Amino acid sequence: MGVPLVRNISQLPEDNYGRDGFSHITVAGSALHGMKEVEVWLQTFSPGSHTPIHRHSCEEVFVVLKGSGTLFLASSSHEKYPGKPQEFPIFANSTFHIPVNDAHQVWNTNDNEDLQVLAIISRPPVKVFIYEGWFVPHIAAKLKFPYYWDEQCLQPSVKDEL
Amino acid sequence: MGVPLVRNISQLPEDNYGRDGFSHITVAGSALHGMKEVEVWLQTFSPGSHTPIHRHSCEEVFVVLKGSGTLFLASSSHEKYPGKPQEFPIFANSTFHIPVNDAHQVWNTNDNEDLQVLAIISRPPVKVFIYEGWFVPHIAAKLKFPYYWDEQCLQPSVKDEL
Repeated sequence: MGVPLVRNISQLPEDNYGRDGFSHITVAGSALHGMKEVEVWLQTFSPGSHTPIHRHSCEEVFVVLKGSGTLFLASSSHEKYPGKPQEFPIFANSTFHIPVNDAHQVWNTNDNEDLQVLAIISRPPVKVFIYEGWFVPHIAAKLKFPYYWDEQCLQPSVKDEL
Repeated sequence: MGVPLVRNISQLPEDNYGRDGFSHITVAGSALHGMKEVEVWLQTFSPGSHTPIHRHSCEEVFVVLKGSGTLFLASSSHEKYPGKPQEFPIFANSTFHIPVNDAHQVWNTNDNEDLQVLAIISRPPVKVFIYEGWFVPHIAAKLKFPYYWDEQCLQPSVKDEL
């Protein structure tokens, strides 16, 4: 790949991908670094910023490095839509994981501090289905692939394989 | 599993598994927390302490949280043994990954500071082959399974599946 084996995370490309108050760094990625089974992201959310409501068919583990916030999680059910999510407080030095295909959203609900997380996924590159609300039917969730941070690197041939 | 979804890492079980100057916490694990595709560890090495020389048939990503040290890595080859490893300096806020099946060893070579890393693996639970030296043949590396931190939880039925 021509990528150095040991990389300084501070020197890796960082972008907000058009989302105010958001920062994403692909620490170890499939498109960028040739990972095949796991991918690691470093993400920062300023107060009030958040992910979309979304699901993906992979495991995801979060490690909260700084700040605090709220995880909204709609456990998978036989309903046709996610429904009202459960709310879980998340905080520095906490960890949690998202079951495969459960709709979820991470919010920085702390007015005073950034929320910084490491997010780890299996089965990269991530295929994200986005919901406009918790009562939108699963079949109306919109696939965004390649996801924003993979767009620059993923070739059409990779898309065609899916 | 009866495991809380959000866990305080400071309150998770920590052990040295008989290794002086070592600390391991399974942040998100297959045996402990039901993960199927990724597993996350928080490990601390006091000055001079290190992993064994080992390989595993999974991807592994490291994120260095604190301290510094040296990665010894013998790229897979058609030799019958790992051979003299390459040395890579590792440092706080660096990341690196270990190619599947490459023999490697992480050392805290800094006399003054602990080395703390998050280690992420695919295909849990980990099946580790340990080498007594870099010139020990691959076929003489010893399988340790379940690995030390999985021993308490893994059932014989899981072992039989492998």
